[in-house]
Amino acid sequence: MKVNQFSLIQTDDATRRHELKALHLLMDGDENLSASQLLLALLLRTHLETTSDAGRAAWLKSLLATPTTNAYDWFKEDEQPTDAVFYLLALQLLDFEVAVDFPLEYPLLGIKRSNLPHHYHEEWDQAAVIDSFYLLLLTRTKNGISLLDKLTSQGMLTWTYHLPASQKPIFFNGKPVASFNPHRFIHEVVYVQTDLDTDFDGKADLVKAEVIRPADSNQGLKVPVLFTASPYNQGTNDEWGEKITHDVNVPLTHKDPDADSPAEATFPTPAQHRDIQGVGPASESFAATPSYTLNDYLATRGYAVVYSAGIGTKDSDGLQTCGSPEQTEAMKAVVEWLHGDRVAFSDRTSNQSVVADWSNGHVAMTGRSYLGTLATAVATTGVAGLDAIISEAAISSWYDYYREGGLVVAPGGFQGEDADVLAAETFSRTKSAADYQHIESTNQKYLQQMTAAQDRASGNYNDFWARRNYHPHFSGIKAAVMIVHGLNDTNVKPVHVKALDDYLKAADHPAHLILHQGQHIYINAFASLDFSEMVNLWLADKLWGVKNDADQVLPRVLFEDNRQEDNWQVAQAWDGRMNFTYHVADHQLVKGAATSASPITFNDHQADATYQDWCAHPAKWQTALLNDDGQFSAHFATEVMAGDLVLRGTPQLTVDVATNLDHGLLSAYLVDRGTARRLTKNPVLLGKNAIPLGYQWKYDDLREFKLEKEPSDYHVISYGHLNLQNRHSLAKPDDYQPNQTVTLTLPLQPVYHHLEDGHQLELILFATDYLMTVRGNEKATYTIDPATVELRLPADFA
Amino acid sequence: MKVNQFSLIQTDDATRRHELKALHLLMDGDENLSASQLLLALLLRTHLETTSDAGRAAWLKSLLATPTTNAYDWFKEDEQPTDAVFYLLALQLLDFEVAVDFPLEYPLLGIKRSNLPHHYHEEWDQAAVIDSFYLLLLTRTKNGISLLDKLTSQGMLTWTYHLPASQKPIFFNGKPVASFNPHRFIHEVVYVQTDLDTDFDGKADLVKAEVIRPADSNQGLKVPVLFTASPYNQGTNDEWGEKITHDVNVPLTHKDPDADSPAEATFPTPAQHRDIQGVGPASESFAATPSYTLNDYLATRGYAVVYSAGIGTKDSDGLQTCGSPEQTEAMKAVVEWLHGDRVAFSDRTSNQSVVADWSNGHVAMTGRSYLGTLATAVATTGVAGLDAIISEAAISSWYDYYREGGLVVAPGGFQGEDADVLAAETFSRTKSAADYQHIESTNQKYLQQMTAAQDRASGNYNDFWARRNYHPHFSGIKAAVMIVHGLNDTNVKPVHVKALDDYLKAADHPAHLILHQGQHIYINAFASLDFSEMVNLWLADKLWGVKNDADQVLPRVLFEDNRQEDNWQVAQAWDGRMNFTYHVADHQLVKGAATSASPITFNDHQADATYQDWCAHPAKWQTALLNDDGQFSAHFATEVMAGDLVLRGTPQLTVDVATNLDHGLLSAYLVDRGTARRLTKNPVLLGKNAIPLGYQWKYDDLREFKLEKEPSDYHVISYGHLNLQNRHSLAKPDDYQPNQTVTLTLPLQPVYHHLEDGHQLELILFATDYLMTVRGNEKATYTIDPATVELRLPADFA
Repeated sequence: MKVNQFSLIQTDDATRRHELKALHLLMDGDENLSASQLLLALLLRTHLETTSDAGRAAWLKSLLATPTTNAYDWFKEDEQPTDAVFYLLALQLLDFEVAVDFPLEYPLLGIKRSNLPHHYHEEWDQAAVIDSFYLLLLTRTKNGISLLDKLTSQGMLTWTYHLPASQKPIFFNGKPVASFNPHRFIHEVVYVQTDLDTDFDGKADLVKAEVIRPADSNQGLKVPVLFTASPYNQGTNDEWGEKITHDVNVPLTHKDPDADSPAEATFPTPAQHRDIQGVGPASESFAATPSYTLNDYLATRGYAVVYSAGIGTKDSDGLQTCGSPEQTEAMKAVVEWLHGDRVAFSDRTSNQSVVADWSNGHVAMTGRSYLGTLATAVATTGVAGLDAIISEAAISSWYDYYREGGLVVAPGGFQGEDADVLAAETFSRTKSAADYQHIESTNQKYLQQMTAAQDRASGNYNDFWARRNYHPHFSGIKAAVMIVHGLNDTNVKPVHVKALDDYLKAADHPAHLILHQGQHIYINAFASLDFSEMVNLWLADKLWGVKNDADQVLPRVLFEDNRQEDNWQVAQAWDGRMNFTYHVADHQLVKGAATSASPITFNDHQADATYQDWCAHPAKWQTALLNDDGQFSAHFATEVMAGDLVLRGTPQLTVDVATNLDHGLLSAYLVDRGTARRLTKNPVLLGKNAIPLGYQWKYDDLREFKLEKEPSDYHVISYGHLNLQNRHSLAKPDDYQPNQTVTLTLPLQPVYHHLEDGHQLELILFATDYLMTVRGNEKATYTIDPATVELRLPADFA
Repeated sequence: MKVNQFSLIQTDDATRRHELKALHLLMDGDENLSASQLLLALLLRTHLETTSDAGRAAWLKSLLATPTTNAYDWFKEDEQPTDAVFYLLALQLLDFEVAVDFPLEYPLLGIKRSNLPHHYHEEWDQAAVIDSFYLLLLTRTKNGISLLDKLTSQGMLTWTYHLPASQKPIFFNGKPVASFNPHRFIHEVVYVQTDLDTDFDGKADLVKAEVIRPADSNQGLKVPVLFTASPYNQGTNDEWGEKITHDVNVPLTHKDPDADSPAEATFPTPAQHRDIQGVGPASESFAATPSYTLNDYLATRGYAVVYSAGIGTKDSDGLQTCGSPEQTEAMKAVVEWLHGDRVAFSDRTSNQSVVADWSNGHVAMTGRSYLGTLATAVATTGVAGLDAIISEAAISSWYDYYREGGLVVAPGGFQGEDADVLAAETFSRTKSAADYQHIESTNQKYLQQMTAAQDRASGNYNDFWARRNYHPHFSGIKAAVMIVHGLNDTNVKPVHVKALDDYLKAADHPAHLILHQGQHIYINAFASLDFSEMVNLWLADKLWGVKNDADQVLPRVLFEDNRQEDNWQVAQAWDGRMNFTYHVADHQLVKGAATSASPITFNDHQADATYQDWCAHPAKWQTALLNDDGQFSAHFATEVMAGDLVLRGTPQLTVDVATNLDHGLLSAYLVDRGTARRLTKNPVLLGKNAIPLGYQWKYDDLREFKLEKEPSDYHVISYGHLNLQNRHSLAKPDDYQPNQTVTLTLPLQPVYHHLEDGHQLELILFATDYLMTVRGNEKATYTIDPATVELRLPADFA
């Protein structure tokens, strides 16, 4: 178990003493204590669970100060602490265990093994004790929280709840501590008026927002806001979504290069706005709303947290437009209200306005997937007040989510889903029977237009997708950006985050990128990484205006190693500094020149039983593909690697292809071949509700990627798909005639992958991807000219 | 989605009015309202989320009262309600959705489809409104809680927190409502003194207990106690447990019929007790301990909740004895303290005693698996104060957990685990470095003796297992018993619960048995069953002394149907009223007589690659077994069933067997063969944290078994294992010589399984069970005489 901490800032002795005093851990008169007495005092002040001397003595007797002396006996001697004594005690306080985590005789080895922050001292005087104890408070326990957060969860800071609002927040090492009582949070609902009319009723759409904020914000404290835009938050229509999911067991078809794409519905503007009848407090509340545990963690640190599901959801107006500029606009309107630039009402009818006078006007948007997508989308508007976004596993262009290379390519695990399906699933105005009765036919009509406009038949890029592409608007981003993405996210694929990060890097925009080894997950409950503290540090800078050097302290790029558990590495950029070009010579992938070879043919058609089985269980298809001997795919592997290589960036493939039909597609896999224990696909649950997010507040599940017990032989690291007709343009296809040889160039998903010594890199070319493309089981034969294969790989030596 | 409610008790009009008044839902003057006005008043009093008239109006406008009129407009007319109006409103309040759950035009069809409790009325007068609304409050929403609990989670009952302790608890329909503020719970630790010395130090073992109780219990209210005895609660040693897990890839060996089993360590008694130095309050507290969400649910209803990990855990004395009478004794001591019959101390050294003067002396033990086991075990002592146990997935004899039929037979999923492994895993005194230093060698020595005494080599029943068998002590049970078990629990197998239930039935002891279709799980967060409310009703009777007819209202036996979702059926007893006897005729299982046939031979030995693969992935072995054509197993199936049959009880198999070695085993599977969509093995997560357990309190995940999307061809419904040498006795084996034919009679796991029309029942005989037995891959050939097969099956027609 290794801890990786990036949220620590440098302090001097005076600051440390000042901050420890602010937490009531250092007190007047402590300067007269010996180093040992001071350490004892600090320990006892953090031990809250007993009110009797006997209980405190029993606790000290349960701790070892040396391999043979318990802390009670050791402190009686009043000897100067040593590195070994301090860090043996530290390991116990941090829940590391003798024998399991460290040998009793060598605590400093335990510190090293677990990669714990530490300050050793030649001379353990008062200043040394303060220095190391201060750092210890910031150090993570074995269980996914800092010692300070563990103590907080035991109630150490509840006295701060009663401080006057003017004395809050309290910062410790540049980060606010949990001094806001979660049981006194104010919950209120407002209806933000947009300038949209997406339900065609002539009136400006109202959008419901749910606000959770500390009671202190009613007592003069202006607080910053975490805003999570979540179309899911008011409920979803899973059955409906399932019902209208598209059939993917259909053939690809020939495209007419001159065909036009159907147009999307347009919304009337400007809408009729409401007259403001007066100003007053909010009059609606709520008990609970689905929340993001990172927001919950930060809420006790003084942030207001706001959720809005936006247009087309329960208690709001409008329709679900699935990523359109209108949806962005609606979410932007919430930020504008929080910044004082827009009106919101206390209810849907009285026209009483509500002012967010408790807001300090600094807003960060948070969330994963669709939620993170909307954070990115709103950021591209450059709206005033949005100072930061933490955009996790976010879509940056919806074409890259539901399409690729002129093909319908599903997000992993969601075959047959499309923009219309997601719109139907999130259209939670169904949850209010009377409201749904009014809007049902309008929505059905709109959805039909969306189904046409997304143009599943062609798979081409068109106006519908252009309106849902945030790339052209990246230059509008003013907020500081933190982006998090899974390198194995097949749902929102890495291409989304790479595009955003490439822009931010080129523009030299303040940004941090975190790439983990997971799929489509949150990372704020990992034992190995202090993500919550990093966010707490970063937002203190962005939203509270604390000068804590967050941008300098936090890595520009942080990525999780694919070879080992708990290994997070710092980098300056995603892309490697080298570019390798591979060709095929004698059927092998080589860095040298291609050799001429006979064409390779494979047949995409399967026996019906196999086809049915793979459609029902596409994972079986993937296993078959990786073990195929050339029946339905072509395989080119490098020699066994001598030395490690880190693949960093977007691979690009060029190859000449022909097929016997008048349409076709090429798919490619890049595979790490080699027997190794690899990280689990999903984080392993280490402890249900093991992470307290405050004192008797909410909890999160402690998780971590672990090495699988059994070795595996391969790992798919990248992939790509291209329609043979979209070889020059995603929007305007070329023609294709049977047996015509065409040159295809396609980018594969960006990678950050450590390819180990002894492994091989393999390129697999095939057609139907049962996990992502349509599956028509056509009698299609493909011919590849190996001599034309060119694979460009950005990389770096390890 | 079907709701199944068993916790409702009959009331009369006066009671309903009285109880609604107590909740402030009915008020003085309501008698002057029309039925419609009263219904409107009730609706608005439960709608807490808005404080303005405009907000309330908006809410009414969002509800439909008829397919074409919203509630706001409908109430303006002051018409008499109708069944259709009331239940259309009801469905919306219960979160059922138009189109998904019911057709708007036929709300009563929705009520029927979802199996919702309801009272229709010819005449909707005041009494009718009160009757149906009262019932509606008790009715479950779509999301796993009653409407009353939903409203509670929205804060409807927070005013009750401030009532004087003397006015609590408040009962509604025989069950206490959540009137105790969870944010003011008192958390305290005491150390209960036992009469044991299980760590050989001459002193009576102290056992730590963690108490969570309402603040009201400091103001004169005596409260009952839920006590969960959980050896896991102070942490576990997973790495250690893994390290000492036994190798199961070893051959079975010949047993010497005359060999003696090694003896177990004995503990010194009586131990030296502490002098009581005084009486005072507890002086130690804690912030959180792992909790059972059913306890959390009940805690806000006025119960104290106590957790103790018992001897051999962090902050307690003693060793982990894995189910021995000493462990039972230590947990019993906690009950005795709660009942005022035993001393506890405020800390480990000062000898200040703490009295549980807040306890009403009525205790129920709760918990699953090891926790439920200890509930059963303590109940067998008949200890005063233990009035009820809710024992879930509990072991009733440890021999049946780690052994079977003279064999080492693992709990499913835990190959190689044994009593010593579990003792090591739960010995959390390791977590306190100084304490562990003192106890390590004592514990190691004890564990070595346990390893010997459990006698893995023979697999025989001996004194070690006899001390861990609670069956002989069932007659000591005085507590009322509720037992819950999974029919597909391969970890703690159904044999455990059947033994207890058989005793309770024979003794006519107050008991309720709930059998679900799951594995080793909790069932208190299912959408389909009001388990939490059932427990709330039952404990109100047992611990608060409320006369609510709980034992008459709750079914004696409740079982979940294996064919359908959300189908819970009531029965009077587990066993069927019929016994069928099957023989083999012409290779088929028939109810008629056997026909003579040639012996059937199968070979237990596998090619090494297969053997290694199955050892690593025993699920592959199971698939192979079910598809085997006689290579390593013998299969006998019935004809296709004409008509349904419910198998109910313990199947018993008799058969003559021989093998070529001087030792051997017979294993048997009973299989439901037939293609059908079956329930998921694990409950499907319907909503993370979707079940609130109170107002801004804890949450549970909403779950439910769902039918798998794909049909499957079989389901293993029962199984058994017997050593050929233990054909007459589990304790005293017989001899066995190669090729000796012996008659074996073995019980299989008890079943409650609906075998459908069109399916077949199949008996599979084999030897090595890769999931549960040792796997030596010996060259063992087995010979079965089909004419000797006799399968006795208790059953009932469907």
